[in-house]
Amino acid sequence: MTAYEIIKKKRDNLELSYKEIFEFVNGYLRNDVSDYQVSAFLMAVFFNGMSDDETEALTKVMANSGEMLKLDSCFNNTVDKHSTGGVGDKTTLIVAPIVASLGCVVAKMSGRGLGFTGGTVDKLSSIPGYKVGLNIDEFLDIVKETNVSVVSQSEALTPADKKIYALRDVTATVDSVPLIASSIMSKKIATGSKSIVLDVKFGSGAFMKDKKRAEILAEKMLTIGKRFNRNMAAVLTNMDKPLGFAIGNNLEVIEAINLLKGEIIPDLYEECVTLASVMLNLSKQIPLDKAEELVENSIKSGAAFEKFREWIVAQGGDISYIDNVEKFEKAKYTAEILSEKTGYISEMDTEQIGICAGLLGAGRENYNDTVDYSAGIILDKKTGDFVNRKERLCRIFTNDKSVIQDIKDRYIKAISFSDKRPEINNPIYKIIF
Amino acid sequence: MTAYEIIKKKRDNLELSYKEIFEFVNGYLRNDVSDYQVSAFLMAVFFNGMSDDETEALTKVMANSGEMLKLDSCFNNTVDKHSTGGVGDKTTLIVAPIVASLGCVVAKMSGRGLGFTGGTVDKLSSIPGYKVGLNIDEFLDIVKETNVSVVSQSEALTPADKKIYALRDVTATVDSVPLIASSIMSKKIATGSKSIVLDVKFGSGAFMKDKKRAEILAEKMLTIGKRFNRNMAAVLTNMDKPLGFAIGNNLEVIEAINLLKGEIIPDLYEECVTLASVMLNLSKQIPLDKAEELVENSIKSGAAFEKFREWIVAQGGDISYIDNVEKFEKAKYTAEILSEKTGYISEMDTEQIGICAGLLGAGRENYNDTVDYSAGIILDKKTGDFVNRKERLCRIFTNDKSVIQDIKDRYIKAISFSDKRPEINNPIYKIIF
Repeated sequence: MTAYEIIKKKRDNLELSYKEIFEFVNGYLRNDVSDYQVSAFLMAVFFNGMSDDETEALTKVMANSGEMLKLDSCFNNTVDKHSTGGVGDKTTLIVAPIVASLGCVVAKMSGRGLGFTGGTVDKLSSIPGYKVGLNIDEFLDIVKETNVSVVSQSEALTPADKKIYALRDVTATVDSVPLIASSIMSKKIATGSKSIVLDVKFGSGAFMKDKKRAEILAEKMLTIGKRFNRNMAAVLTNMDKPLGFAIGNNLEVIEAINLLKGEIIPDLYEECVTLASVMLNLSKQIPLDKAEELVENSIKSGAAFEKFREWIVAQGGDISYIDNVEKFEKAKYTAEILSEKTGYISEMDTEQIGICAGLLGAGRENYNDTVDYSAGIILDKKTGDFVNRKERLCRIFTNDKSVIQDIKDRYIKAISFSDKRPEINNPIYKIIF
Repeated sequence: MTAYEIIKKKRDNLELSYKEIFEFVNGYLRNDVSDYQVSAFLMAVFFNGMSDDETEALTKVMANSGEMLKLDSCFNNTVDKHSTGGVGDKTTLIVAPIVASLGCVVAKMSGRGLGFTGGTVDKLSSIPGYKVGLNIDEFLDIVKETNVSVVSQSEALTPADKKIYALRDVTATVDSVPLIASSIMSKKIATGSKSIVLDVKFGSGAFMKDKKRAEILAEKMLTIGKRFNRNMAAVLTNMDKPLGFAIGNNLEVIEAINLLKGEIIPDLYEECVTLASVMLNLSKQIPLDKAEELVENSIKSGAAFEKFREWIVAQGGDISYIDNVEKFEKAKYTAEILSEKTGYISEMDTEQIGICAGLLGAGRENYNDTVDYSAGIILDKKTGDFVNRKERLCRIFTNDKSVIQDIKDRYIKAISFSDKRPEINNPIYKIIF
């Protein structure tokens, strides 16, 4: 079947076979199928969707397009976690050492963040000395030693996903459930963990604003993962306010350390405990309530923090920063944003707050931009809190003085008030297996 | 607005402004917008369609992208005819001299045929000496002299349509009413006739199989044409059997000459009279019944044939061929296809019959292929005719002996029989103004 016929078949809402998807995608990698044919195909998928069989086929073809890690043959109880991304999401920094301290193996490859704030790899890079660009052998050696390592995603993995994603990004075809699901799952399959926990976020700060669509995406990824014989679970979480209080690379590392040292940070604590418990449940078949107890104990006892230290040291990080967070680089400029109103915070436009963090320097727009590790926001007040006029809403940190006034205006606009205490959503909406 | 935002807007089914369409298309012509963005856009149009305002805007932008003929400033009563294409369609060769003999001006640019059989320009090229590649001045001089000229479409006209059409052709985005309508109408607007008659075909031999969709396409083109202040009409015609009996370039020229000499060829005669009458009605405001009388008289009196001779001579054609059609080049091989059944022909797969003519050598697959002027089919029997077993269905003509057996098998398969005389569709379904 020609590329033309494959596009037409998808356009006419007929189901493509594995062979057809294989030929189309590999033709594209060889440049026998052109960009303009693939983008027409992707737009047809945007409208007509893909069946589970088609999504599985696309996932498999993309996973097989590059190197595949065979973690299963080296380790037991391998578990990965993927978040669809949100503002202030530093959960990987916390849950990875927790579950590693409990005997799970977390060998994680993480993408660089494109968007408001850096990705996990950027956050870790804000720890002086921490090496994100290890080769596979170095990476696996650290996993053997400490049960946990997080590195940046190898260029050799899923080249087909990279090429297709770059095209989706400029043709308005990112926002498609089967394309999102196959992109995420191809990477997860290629990186080889036996158990996979998906943190699928919805709400004003998430890519998926709509809870129903987030649920559909979660179900689709679960279906696909199970077909690859993985233990799968998805945690649907609320992103209608930033997670925790810190937004920005080293600010989030510090918050993660504080939590691991025993500080109870509302929402963030609950979400991390849930994610870690589900990871433990999946990979070691420990009942969820028992897993939760183990996770909380690992924090209380200091075992999780000890594992975090071990991991950071093994990966080259300067432990003195971990033990004394005051050492972290601080932004040159700081400012306070004060409330102009008195009342309860009824809503936060979390995406706007993420954009503020990005404009302060914490994110990147283009793949090769650098991020400012010390820039960001520390919130004082979140949805549900009562605030007096002139009371501080947050502090902002930046090395670019010129953006401060704009950020103040944007931040004030992003916060809605009401006279009544609003109902507060539980950060965890649902766990699906 | 960026190209990305324009694609997204169309994807989300929001209406684009003239300015947005102008920027997008002209950006594409300048290569600032890439093929892969345009093909994603076209696929979004396939799914979401285009409003009349959007279709008008796209038509205008494409018409204005190259040279525009200002026929109106040189001539009165200019009239153009466009057919969406069918098997055995030689109507231009007939209606152009008819209406020219009655005082209308037909200055027509015609595309080269891609598909089963050649286009009008290929048919005319089968007359030795006839020049299709005139420059604008030579073209207009002939129009001044004889009221009629048909040349191949100038490369300088509607470059945006050419570039977009080439992309649609390889991305399965041809089959979209607003894209077909704007492509056809941009060329008609650029070639400048005041009155435009559209022959919109439906049925087994037409691009639009479905009558309802053909009607929608016709209405869309009428709406667009009127917005450009043109006199518009559409004739919806049945393409469930070949038009006339001859299929193939010089075979069709001979059939056209025979009709102009007074031979009554069923369906073809009726369709030509209707098209010519509507052209006369639109361009000279002559009531339809009166126009029909004038058209029939022009054939009967020989005035139309005399005009045809004048035109062909003016354009360099060897008149001895017109006066003695026996002179036309004949194919080396001829074969008869005999019926395997006895009964009424109930249906003809007209597209398949067109493909047969193409395989015999009458068509081209690629733009630069040559066509074989003498190849083709002359039918003996059409839908509704009673045929005895072993009676001749048609004769085929080719210079490629190797295809004959395949054509026989295909042709036999394309003909369905029944015991009862089937109902016969009128070739003219509807005239819309």
